[in-house]
Amino acid sequence: MIAALELPATLTAREQTLVLRGAGLGDLDALMALLADDPISAARGDQAQESDLPAYERALADLIGDPSNEILLVEDAAGAVIATMQLTRIPGMARRGSTRLLVEAVRVSSALRSGGVGSAMMRWVTDVAAPVTGSSIVQLTSDEARVDAHRFYERLGFVGSHRGFKYAVTAAN
Amino acid sequence: MIAALELPATLTAREQTLVLRGAGLGDLDALMALLADDPISAARGDQAQESDLPAYERALADLIGDPSNEILLVEDAAGAVIATMQLTRIPGMARRGSTRLLVEAVRVSSALRSGGVGSAMMRWVTDVAAPVTGSSIVQLTSDEARVDAHRFYERLGFVGSHRGFKYAVTAAN
Repeated sequence: MIAALELPATLTAREQTLVLRGAGLGDLDALMALLADDPISAARGDQAQESDLPAYERALADLIGDPSNEILLVEDAAGAVIATMQLTRIPGMARRGSTRLLVEAVRVSSALRSGGVGSAMMRWVTDVAAPVTGSSIVQLTSDEARVDAHRFYERLGFVGSHRGFKYAVTAAN
Repeated sequence: MIAALELPATLTAREQTLVLRGAGLGDLDALMALLADDPISAARGDQAQESDLPAYERALADLIGDPSNEILLVEDAAGAVIATMQLTRIPGMARRGSTRLLVEAVRVSSALRSGGVGSAMMRWVTDVAAPVTGSSIVQLTSDEARVDAHRFYERLGFVGSHRGFKYAVTAAN
């Protein structure tokens, strides 16, 4: 939980009023379903399988207890969980001691994409969450396969100036 | 400071034995000099100017006190600071609850580049720091202008699968 964030918050996506709130341990099923609802995540192993429950549960508890991280959920007017994202506050020396806000794992329910939910979430990150956490840069990486997402971030004013590298640590290490 | 990391550690870069250790407040000048020694950082404002001292000092104190972050220095046999990098441990739900280790602000003194120092640092991250922090992914972003750095990361087994986006938060927000 990042203490500086004022939650829950209200988001407006076109005609709808949505609630943005921090996730609790009771949101585990909804979070697993949102991850599995994304084909790129599903291909990486996020398939909401029963056997993965302990690993997801441990991760969620770790996130909730971490003062540098916040895992967020968006609820529609009926209280259904329709989206999630994770924020990490990262202090740093570069760019004259700039604090960054890293956005990870943005997922909007597939039935609701292109409905303005993602835009409302990202606007809240850049316009509310960044200033209250003292962050002068918001950053994220997006799989090169997510061409539509890249256009979406560019429309919001993000600049795709960097290459994102990942290294999979093998069990042998 | 990330408590799980066992520091100082010994690195070997070709013929040289180096010491990797956590930075203290007394290392501020050396860190500012390494940032300014990089043309891309310098163009973003990291020019080791006296007037930026309070901002860098605040950032360094923030980093040292943060249990999810570690700012590291490499010293040569004579005790000179020749490189730095920052590590951030990030728990997460995606990829079945994987913890990630983010590497930021890798800088090697310009006089010593291509001498194996960067490789020794990154090998320590993937082979030592990742396992002891429970991280199954090591990730970083690198400016598209750093073509040599991209080849360097690929040689070490990193995959440039993602695009890195940044958003500069304006003072007006």
